[in-house]
Amino acid sequence: MPAKKAHYGSAAETEAAFYDALNRADLEALMALWADDDEIVCVHPGGPRLIGHAAIRKSWAAILEHGGLHILPSQLHETHTLMSSVHVVIEGSTAATGEPAHLVATNVYAKTPRGWRIVLHHVSIAPGPAPVDTSTQILH
Amino acid sequence: MPAKKAHYGSAAETEAAFYDALNRADLEALMALWADDDEIVCVHPGGPRLIGHAAIRKSWAAILEHGGLHILPSQLHETHTLMSSVHVVIEGSTAATGEPAHLVATNVYAKTPRGWRIVLHHVSIAPGPAPVDTSTQILH
Repeated sequence: MPAKKAHYGSAAETEAAFYDALNRADLEALMALWADDDEIVCVHPGGPRLIGHAAIRKSWAAILEHGGLHILPSQLHETHTLMSSVHVVIEGSTAATGEPAHLVATNVYAKTPRGWRIVLHHVSIAPGPAPVDTSTQILH
Repeated sequence: MPAKKAHYGSAAETEAAFYDALNRADLEALMALWADDDEIVCVHPGGPRLIGHAAIRKSWAAILEHGGLHILPSQLHETHTLMSSVHVVIEGSTAATGEPAHLVATNVYAKTPRGWRIVLHHVSIAPGPAPVDTSTQILH
């Protein structure tokens, strides 16, 4: 079954597929996860606001040209209503700025007839290493 | 009537009140616009993920200590469902990085029994001056 026809039953499943596609540099799978609507928005770290499939596809094509991104999102924070879900995740450390930094991503999903799809992806750079995930710390 | 009791009938009204409070450095009015839920999230430009009223209030108190921010949001891009609304706005130019740059903000609102409230505010810095708003350009 082509990636386009996949049906994701939860925002978490769509998010897992999104980061999997990024890791595999699979542009087709990646773009198939967005809502079928030209109002979708993407803001890359330090980048401008991009609106619509054409602009967003072009940006990811350039990013993935040299291979996958190896992002392992963690510390999911979720708020949701019946029809939408807002995830804020730590995308891990980055060396992009020359100093210790990490990435914070807001991912908004909407429930569509074809399952949960991405409507917004907004990432920014934060100072210092990725914060410790206290929820999974081993205390003993 | 104290700001706390205000009822905002649309996400746009809440957003206008939010930027008005920022411009007036009115911390109480600002915090009253957020959802009554400790799952609220705020990411300032170049900052880490903040969760909950205490952390978010503390950050705004520090930012507003020296006065209002003089932000005039423009180029609203909105996607919404019955219970939530996602706004992406250009917050205008910034000199924070020493080079021409502008700010991009994602603001997520939820419909609550007390009206539309902020559940997420995520801002990042983008290169170059604020893009021209083509929707309001005068062509002749």
